[in-house]
Amino acid sequence: MAPRLSEDWFIETIRRLSARAGPRPVAGIGDDTAVLALPRKSETLFTTDFLTEGVHFIAARTPGEMLGRKALAVNLSDIAAMGGVPHSAVVSIGLPRDTASAYARAIARGLAEMARRYNVAIVGGDTCAAERLFVNVALLGFVEPRRAVRRSGGRPGDGLYVTGALGASAAGLAVLLGRARRVGRASAAAPRGAVAAATRAAVRAHLDPEPRTAFGRALGLCGLATAMIDLSDGLGQDLPRLCAASRTGAVIGASSVPVSPAASVVLGRERALAAALGGGEDYELLFSARPEWESLIAGLARRLRQPVVRIGTLRPAREGIRLLTREGRYLPLPRGAFEHFPRRRRTLARVTDDACAM
Amino acid sequence: MAPRLSEDWFIETIRRLSARAGPRPVAGIGDDTAVLALPRKSETLFTTDFLTEGVHFIAARTPGEMLGRKALAVNLSDIAAMGGVPHSAVVSIGLPRDTASAYARAIARGLAEMARRYNVAIVGGDTCAAERLFVNVALLGFVEPRRAVRRSGGRPGDGLYVTGALGASAAGLAVLLGRARRVGRASAAAPRGAVAAATRAAVRAHLDPEPRTAFGRALGLCGLATAMIDLSDGLGQDLPRLCAASRTGAVIGASSVPVSPAASVVLGRERALAAALGGGEDYELLFSARPEWESLIAGLARRLRQPVVRIGTLRPAREGIRLLTREGRYLPLPRGAFEHFPRRRRTLARVTDDACAM
Repeated sequence: MAPRLSEDWFIETIRRLSARAGPRPVAGIGDDTAVLALPRKSETLFTTDFLTEGVHFIAARTPGEMLGRKALAVNLSDIAAMGGVPHSAVVSIGLPRDTASAYARAIARGLAEMARRYNVAIVGGDTCAAERLFVNVALLGFVEPRRAVRRSGGRPGDGLYVTGALGASAAGLAVLLGRARRVGRASAAAPRGAVAAATRAAVRAHLDPEPRTAFGRALGLCGLATAMIDLSDGLGQDLPRLCAASRTGAVIGASSVPVSPAASVVLGRERALAAALGGGEDYELLFSARPEWESLIAGLARRLRQPVVRIGTLRPAREGIRLLTREGRYLPLPRGAFEHFPRRRRTLARVTDDACAM
Repeated sequence: MAPRLSEDWFIETIRRLSARAGPRPVAGIGDDTAVLALPRKSETLFTTDFLTEGVHFIAARTPGEMLGRKALAVNLSDIAAMGGVPHSAVVSIGLPRDTASAYARAIARGLAEMARRYNVAIVGGDTCAAERLFVNVALLGFVEPRRAVRRSGGRPGDGLYVTGALGASAAGLAVLLGRARRVGRASAAAPRGAVAAATRAAVRAHLDPEPRTAFGRALGLCGLATAMIDLSDGLGQDLPRLCAASRTGAVIGASSVPVSPAASVVLGRERALAAALGGGEDYELLFSARPEWESLIAGLARRLRQPVVRIGTLRPAREGIRLLTREGRYLPLPRGAFEHFPRRRRTLARVTDDACAM
């Protein structure tokens, strides 16, 4: 007999699956609150993010394990962007009554797997019936005093860097929405096997992002980033946030932006660049660093096997935020450059502009 | 023009309204995570709870301020039940597209008001469109090392106490569901003005509970409780949780249970007792204490002007959990004694038994 989707069952499943993950709490699941011994002489990092059905994902196209992993990953990405170490999480989940217990168990498995992978203890939660499935995670981390990498420390002249490659997540969403072929006619040029592999990679990037925990932490520990933010809404929205907090402008080179090869195959080269600039949900790190640190950053990137690319430079605020095109022209950086994706997404989600934090 | 229900607007509204509430964060709203300086030499308390439309509340019958206050109150109640001090919160809110901005602003106002009242900083959040309104709060608190009051410290012979009175919340829900009159024919005996006042009090108890923060903290600080839990699901479910963690049984006297006068008027005396035993959502504290501490507890209650009543005694586990009726008979404590309420609630919420954590 399938177990009932009760609070006790779901929380007990997470507890069992993540039993040895993360720092051992003084008291974990099973009391009114968890009791934690956070490292002394550190500052506490605290963040929350949720995924909700019909807006962030479509349950029928999102395996439960991936949903569970992503719910934790998007929070881990925020801790990474502060240069901190994740510690403990609490999970809230609203489950529609008709949720298959196998799907609920898969979500718990995904949460527990990510918790083990990143050494996070799941120490509490709240489960209840809901009309639409949602998963909320609140995550605690820590960082040495005054070492948190804020968004506000950038200065004109600092180099601007991103980890990994951009645009794959937007390409993956286009695939899931059945729009990749129409959007990406250019992909006809690629061999068939390569298209299939790129499609899989893009969908995985969208459903199952990997936070840049190790590299973000290394930047924080070494003090090698003056400002940092994770790319949840895309360069077109997140770079202005970093610049606003740092009171700077910026210029980035279109030919320097690391466009995901999978996005290029799935969407075609030009639209892949638009996805890299405006697509969102790549969960890579965008950070600034003093110009003289360039070789140190390259060394750290090699050592941690984390591709990192310099995409531009912080400039005085009065110059605004500009994109240097391949033709050598300066354009204002478009806020939502990948026009096909957000419009479709709004239709799916019936959300207003900007209504979405992720 | 009404502002758009964007993330920035909602979080900015909360930030502005709660600006001076609680301990000042190193970094608050506006970075990837909040950065907090929690008191050194303390243990960290961490909890989360959510309210979702159609299950925990009906938006049309729940003023936004009350919803905002309750979302924080149910978490404050958990910190109180550990004997701790609340510190900082992050808030996730899913807003349907047709939410009136006045209603969203009222929720923010309620959250901010409760944050000010209980000295909690709101340091972050996530807002997004959702098909059904929900509010999730994750709350951090702290307590002196090894002073957290667990559920597990009770011993046979300890006295069992509750703060305040029970059953008003269930009576208030019955009113909101339009079932009070049918359920509570006995109220016909009460004068009309008294019925109106009791009805208002019961509805307020349901929509706008006050956590027992000061008294819970005092018990923790003085070390006067051996075990404690907040009454979110009712004595019939929460007493067995305390007993299971403490490996004890218990006996409580039906005539000792402090039944809310408002519940007695709204529901009639017998049904009010059933509501007090099984209704849930009263957010009073249930705790155990060594028998020799009885006068100390009475003194603390007087000093803090917090009514506290002894309702029974912890017993050896083999005796089970029993109710001593007014007629002197021992009955097993009914798990969901107030039968009219949970069944109706399940229909409203379309949830399975136990599916609800609150």
